[in-house]
Amino acid sequence: MNTAEKLGERKIIEMILDRLEPMPQMPVPFGDDVSAIDIGRGKLVVIKTDMLVGKTDVPPGMSLWQASRKAVVMNISDLAAKGVKPIAVLASVGIPRDFAKKNIEQIGKGLNDGAREYGAYVLGGDTSEASDLVISCSAFGVGTKRHLMLRSGAKPGDYVAVTGFFGNTAAGLKILLEELSVKPQMKKQFVGAVLMPHARVREGVALAHTWAVTASIDSSDGLAWSLHEISKASNVGFLIEKLPVDAKVKEFAKTHHLDPVELSLYGGEEYELVLTVKPKLWKMAEKTARLIKIGSVTKKRSLLLKAGKRTIPIETRGWEHFKTS
Amino acid sequence: MNTAEKLGERKIIEMILDRLEPMPQMPVPFGDDVSAIDIGRGKLVVIKTDMLVGKTDVPPGMSLWQASRKAVVMNISDLAAKGVKPIAVLASVGIPRDFAKKNIEQIGKGLNDGAREYGAYVLGGDTSEASDLVISCSAFGVGTKRHLMLRSGAKPGDYVAVTGFFGNTAAGLKILLEELSVKPQMKKQFVGAVLMPHARVREGVALAHTWAVTASIDSSDGLAWSLHEISKASNVGFLIEKLPVDAKVKEFAKTHHLDPVELSLYGGEEYELVLTVKPKLWKMAEKTARLIKIGSVTKKRSLLLKAGKRTIPIETRGWEHFKTS
Repeated sequence: MNTAEKLGERKIIEMILDRLEPMPQMPVPFGDDVSAIDIGRGKLVVIKTDMLVGKTDVPPGMSLWQASRKAVVMNISDLAAKGVKPIAVLASVGIPRDFAKKNIEQIGKGLNDGAREYGAYVLGGDTSEASDLVISCSAFGVGTKRHLMLRSGAKPGDYVAVTGFFGNTAAGLKILLEELSVKPQMKKQFVGAVLMPHARVREGVALAHTWAVTASIDSSDGLAWSLHEISKASNVGFLIEKLPVDAKVKEFAKTHHLDPVELSLYGGEEYELVLTVKPKLWKMAEKTARLIKIGSVTKKRSLLLKAGKRTIPIETRGWEHFKTS
Repeated sequence: MNTAEKLGERKIIEMILDRLEPMPQMPVPFGDDVSAIDIGRGKLVVIKTDMLVGKTDVPPGMSLWQASRKAVVMNISDLAAKGVKPIAVLASVGIPRDFAKKNIEQIGKGLNDGAREYGAYVLGGDTSEASDLVISCSAFGVGTKRHLMLRSGAKPGDYVAVTGFFGNTAAGLKILLEELSVKPQMKKQFVGAVLMPHARVREGVALAHTWAVTASIDSSDGLAWSLHEISKASNVGFLIEKLPVDAKVKEFAKTHHLDPVELSLYGGEEYELVLTVKPKLWKMAEKTARLIKIGSVTKKRSLLLKAGKRTIPIETRGWEHFKTS
């Protein structure tokens, strides 16, 4: 029998989407990072909901304050990728019966702090009894149609850029899960990336106003998967010439005999923006936010990585619920 | 140690709210049924999020299609109580690993059908792996500030009215949980009320435009609790003169030696509207929607029920997560 476990998260989402009647003139199509309602005069209410589950999304070492903050930040990150500033957050919290009072206070504080960090407010929500901690947040902002950065506008010849270096969270998760011993400074950087993710709101909102960006997504399911999603939505391919591996991640990989390409391409839980940019407006985009150019958009729908003299395919895999990696 | 179980849902919500910085000029205060963002020109985006958990919110006999539909309807009901028509729904679904493909299809269909029934669309969402089925929905609508029906406007002398008779779901749950044997027609009515709840969108939206309603809430936590909430938010009391017990519920209570007052006041999972209405505009309100007058608002902050020649207090209890009733 086909179970959730065998189907995997992406197939499950596809099956559910197949059963939904699309709203006429949806301002944002199914399958992009956010949804939107048209409120007239060119304005959209942009909304995102995502659920954090204790068992799968909270690694050992993450406090409840951090988990609650992350539940907010991961939703805000999707607004950021579309160029929208968050205004408000709602939270539905499922709490196990045996949770201590102190834990609940930490959840309240984490939700508030996650939203306030980005200028948003938690407006309300609800709690339920659940077998495992579940924090389902919805984030809202108001955007303008003409500034919204979707996944679907990448054109051959566009540059591909990211807002930061990759591999930190994959390294951090290895440290937390396998208790690897590393230098304190490295540990701080990698574990910090896992426990205190940061949404690129300032960058996303500023870039949206340059009109330089043709497609955008956050990298929460990994860099490879983000490229795959833009490729699918824009019907283009990518040639990545310079993988944005963090310098410390390279060092960490060398010491522990790990593959830095694996750590930075397929890690996930990173919240950098992955963007395609019009070459003519690159200079302006670069002035607006720190961008690292990593390659270019190709007409052929394949994902390729230059590795020395060779060109190797980038696999279409990344972080996925249900599937054990 | 104080655990979630001992604190109960309402204390937990209070503890979380205590840790939230309120947004300046919040159009809807903390603790009302919905939250709202001001989008200018007197308009509000009105939003509600609530979570359905398999273990506590899905009684035996309820299909996954019904549970998913209910997860949507219970959110739409809160918009209805504020007089706001739903436009869109987002759903975050937590699914156990061993769920069959057929179950997932039922969830997609139930979410869609729940929204479409009220003219809304499911715009997107997300799935995660969870120990128990969790469906967290957010419902959205656009309302006008001057038409919004809050909990806080009831005035002494106002009439108290409801949009339907009570006790059906309490009777239905008794049948489902204790396998009571009843006449088929009765069973159909009671069990139907549990499995296929209905949100009073038409009534809520129409009533909001009469300006006759001074306070409004849905009765999802029970009639007694709804009265208590309006009493707290409006700083008034109630004298209920005629309890709106459904005729078949009375018969059912008699046969099974149950208290019809208990079934209709403290049941919950009913989605009727509980309203206070300006006496001068009562006739107009009554023409707009079927309303049953059950009593009046009093200056003294007590909840009282006329029972024959006696007046008895209405207890401030109702359906609450974590607390075993």
